[in-house]
Amino acid sequence: MTSAEHGSRPNDRPQLRHYLGQAVDLATENVGAGGGPFGAVVVTPDGRVHAGVNRVTRDNDPTAHAEVVAIRAAAAATGNFDLTGSVLYASCEPCPMCLASALWARIGHVYFAADRHGAAAAGFDDALFYDYFSGAAPELMPVTRDDIPTSDVPFQTWRAFDSRKEY
Amino acid sequence: MTSAEHGSRPNDRPQLRHYLGQAVDLATENVGAGGGPFGAVVVTPDGRVHAGVNRVTRDNDPTAHAEVVAIRAAAAATGNFDLTGSVLYASCEPCPMCLASALWARIGHVYFAADRHGAAAAGFDDALFYDYFSGAAPELMPVTRDDIPTSDVPFQTWRAFDSRKEY
Repeated sequence: MTSAEHGSRPNDRPQLRHYLGQAVDLATENVGAGGGPFGAVVVTPDGRVHAGVNRVTRDNDPTAHAEVVAIRAAAAATGNFDLTGSVLYASCEPCPMCLASALWARIGHVYFAADRHGAAAAGFDDALFYDYFSGAAPELMPVTRDDIPTSDVPFQTWRAFDSRKEY
Repeated sequence: MTSAEHGSRPNDRPQLRHYLGQAVDLATENVGAGGGPFGAVVVTPDGRVHAGVNRVTRDNDPTAHAEVVAIRAAAAATGNFDLTGSVLYASCEPCPMCLASALWARIGHVYFAADRHGAAAAGFDDALFYDYFSGAAPELMPVTRDDIPTSDVPFQTWRAFDSRKEY
């Protein structure tokens, strides 16, 4: 990272480190609260900070990673599923689910503190997931198409629906 | 798909087509309800069917794809974030977020009806997202590490926490 990259607001280096520090502190606090050691914040263009912590085991929600929780909180708080111009700060390197969630939310930049190796040393090893997305472990979860007669009906219905909300 | 693959329960071909048809019908119905043309069901090993529809615009939740909604519903209903032995049926080819969510949920197999080209023809083009994960479009969302002094504290705290719930 060059200083030029962070030489101007909102992503100057002290501000970056402030928000990353918040994400890391949330992660640490979440351990005592019975959650996983992961935290994240989304900073929306209005300057508001939307926090998330890992709630997988507490909520029985396999998608409740800190980054996803923070993204959902930011979208709910701003009343918009499109978070263009927002920045995601995560205590640890985001997994493919969290990166894809950030893409769908139109997050502009992701910063993280610990990397996947630090997570693996604590027993959180996403290596198989990265392998899956690189095509090295397809047997982990087979994905099969079966083109049934009604496959295209939802899209035909969508195209014919005048008051559809495109996104 | 060979008949051998679907020659035995729970994934014999008529049953597969039954659940895929349910996912497609949910997708079609969701258009009239103001949602996107996507539906999904998760069938858990106890035979229960857990439905999901796209709720992105209705809930202002960029992560509320049908597959994610169905996975969250199944985990909540069974009281377990681990859905080992479950099958996900989706009206359309799942995006990387949904596939990664299914991986985290330990879904055993994913079936889908329409493919990404059908979705693109209806205005839902995930091509950029697939490009991103293949490494062809990194500029879409830069991901930057900044290793701050507290980066490893959450994991140190986790390792020292006797009543941690591993997963």
